Parts: sequence; C-alpha cells; structure tokens
Amino acid sequence: MRLIDTQRSGNAWKVRLLARLLGVTLERTTLSIDAGDLRKTEFLERNPLGQIPVLELDDGRRLYESMAILRYLAEGSEFWPSDSWCQAEVLTWLSFEQAQHMRPLAQLRLHLSLKHDRQSSDADMAALRPEALHALQQLEARLTAQERVGTSWVAADVPTIADVALYPYTRMAPMAQIELDVYPAVQTWLARIEALPGYAPLYPGRPDMNYATTEI
Amino acid sequence: MRLIDTQRSGNAWKVRLLARLLGVTLERTTLSIDAGDLRKTEFLERNPLGQIPVLELDDGRRLYESMAILRYLAEGSEFWPSDSWCQAEVLTWLSFEQAQHMRPLAQLRLHLSLKHDRQSSDADMAALRPEALHALQQLEARLTAQERVGTSWVAADVPTIADVALYPYTRMAPMAQIELDVYPAVQTWLARIEALPGYAPLYPGRPDMNYATTEI
Repeated sequence: MRLIDTQRSGNAWKVRLLARLLGVTLERTTLSIDAGDLRKTEFLERNPLGQIPVLELDDGRRLYESMAILRYLAEGSEFWPSDSWCQAEVLTWLSFEQAQHMRPLAQLRLHLSLKHDRQSSDADMAALRPEALHALQQLEARLTAQERVGTSWVAADVPTIADVALYPYTRMAPMAQIELDVYPAVQTWLARIEALPGYAPLYPGRPDMNYATTEI
Repeated sequence: MRLIDTQRSGNAWKVRLLARLLGVTLERTTLSIDAGDLRKTEFLERNPLGQIPVLELDDGRRLYESMAILRYLAEGSEFWPSDSWCQAEVLTWLSFEQAQHMRPLAQLRLHLSLKHDRQSSDADMAALRPEALHALQQLEARLTAQERVGTSWVAADVPTIADVALYPYTRMAPMAQIELDVYPAVQTWLARIEALPGYAPLYPGRPDMNYATTEI
C-alpha cells in the first residue's frame, strides 16, 4: 500500500501515526504544496477531491478522506472496535473532528504559522479562534467525563481511530496560537498517545521542525 | 428508541429518513430552536455537544452526531455494507458531507431562508457560496463517474447512509439560493432517493413548508 501525503499535513500525519501504531508499513509519495503538486493533473486524476492524504492499494483502488483511510487500515484491530455501539461512538468523535475541530485549528495553523499571510487580529482569524477554543473545551469535557468512568480514551476503553484522528490538530494547537495549559485532561491524553509503542512526531528526527511557529 | 430533533434540521431529517427507509419506528421529541430549547440545561445534559439530533436508546445510552446515529441504525442493513472496503467508501462520502458539503449549504440556508438575517451580498454569505458550489460540483462529478461504471449511488451499488446523509442539504440547496439545474446527475439522484419506498419529505403533509424560502 502507498500513502500519498505531504510532510506537514495533519490529516496525513493521522494516517502515518495509525500505520506505525499498527505496525503496518506504508510506501510513501510525499508531495509539496509549495511546489504546486496538489494542483497537477497527475495528482487530480488520483484524487478528484484534490486533497491529501490518498491511500493507494496494490490493486490500484484508492481512498481519499483520512477518516475512511483510518477505518480501512484499522480493520480487525482494537482501533476500530467490532461492536456496533462502539463503532457509533468512534464515529461520533470522528465526525466531531471533521465538522467542528479540524477546520478552525487547521486554518489558524495554516495562516498564522505556515503561510504567515494573516494576523491573529484579522477578522477571519478572529472568527475562527472561538470555534477552535470551543472544540478544545468540548474535547476537554469529554476526556474529563471519560476519566470519571475510568476510561482514558475519547471513544472507548482502548485507543481507537477517534484518538488518532483528534491527536494531530490538537497537538499542533500552539501553531494556531492556542496554548493548551488550560486543558489538563487534553494534555494528559496527548502524553498518553505519545507513550504508545510506535508513536512518531510530525517530523521524526527533526524535533525543531515539529511545531515551530517559524516553520517554513 | 427516541429521536430528539427539530422539524427543520437537515441533520435530523437524515435520521428520520433512514428510519423510514429501514422501516424502523422512532419515538420523537421535537424541540424548537426559536423557543430556546437547545440552550436549556435539560437538553445540554442529554447532549454535551449541544446539537440535535440525539438518539436515545431504551437503556438510556445516547448518540449525538448524525453520522454515528445513521451508522448505528443501519447495522445489518444494506445501508451500512459489511465489507471493509465498502465501509471505507461510505465513510469517504460521510466525511465529505460533514467537512465540506453540509456547513456552507446549511449556513446559507439558515441565514438566507430561515432567519433572514443576512443578504446574499454580505461578506460571510459571499464567502460560503463558492464553498457550497464546489461541494455540489464534486458531488455531481462523483455521481457522473458512478453512472459511468453502472452505479446509481454515491458510495456503492446500493443506496447507503452516504446517500441519506448527502440528501437533505443537497435537496434544500434552493433555500441557500443555489439552483440545482446545472447539476443533472445530482437531480437524477435526488429523484431516485425520493422514489425509494418509505421516503418522506421534510414536512410530510405540508408540501408548502418543505423548501420555501419564505418559511418561518
């Protein structure tokens, strides 16, 4: 199987992280947004939605939404529980991540720390910030409630693809100029994920590049 | 099982629609946003995310994201295929709906047709419109590609919860001041869903209330 990604995409990081946690080896084709790779015909033919990551199977079939790729890779593992209720709980938090959590955090990170083309005082950035804070507060409340019933993870009593999906953009919140100090349950949960066997950061071997707001 | 909904929510309509297509009877508690029901403590205790729909099981457990509710109700039916690859394809389009399709269409509908508190020329509405058009173009392209391989549905060769999830906000696009004439594959697909046994519109028995832009 081959993963088409970029090094900096949080959505691609989810997939690389799950593969490592599962011990699955993925071949990689790493594209560059800056070089315009995602606008090239060759890429758009592989993914009509025009986004990374893309997972290509050996028989040529392709998946191109991180949620779908995570679910496919997790087949048969604890990261995608077999029970119908548990799957619905996992999907609740995958949906929350896609609809409410990722967009404000990813947009703030993109413009404030990667492109440096906006100020946090700009109207569009100022509108995204409360959305990002609200999502993090909801995650904090969920993790606190889970701890109360003796569970350390977002959707089940084991780590699932919901934890993997919520991890990258939460971890990179400081790049969105949002500090995580006020979310203690979130911080504990981040550390718990980082202690899982196989965990790797965004730029393995380049800790200075991981979450620096001066990253190019 | 009890569904907590509002009459006008597209996310709640997805759940009522799937239940009817499956022949499952749901008890209903229908709240009113205008009456402030969604801000009341009683409701927030039932759903910490503060949104409808909520599905309450007879044993008191609750699900509160439409994607998760659809998946739970569809267990064992063709609407949630058992094959791992097919599930990933369904999730691709559920994710697309949550991350790219629903938000601009729902926001435009809310402000231009329900609240009447914005003009289509306002900056925030003008920014949402290209996002909504782009999502509809991607749906049109997908349905056209599916027709080319002999399939009439978004994610599989049978209707799945991906079709059910994408239906309401696509159908209500005219309330977002977006006409569907330029999306022939989308129009054919909408008619195909409306021909499924059990289909019911947003306001059964009140066709004048369904998609009128003057709706209160």
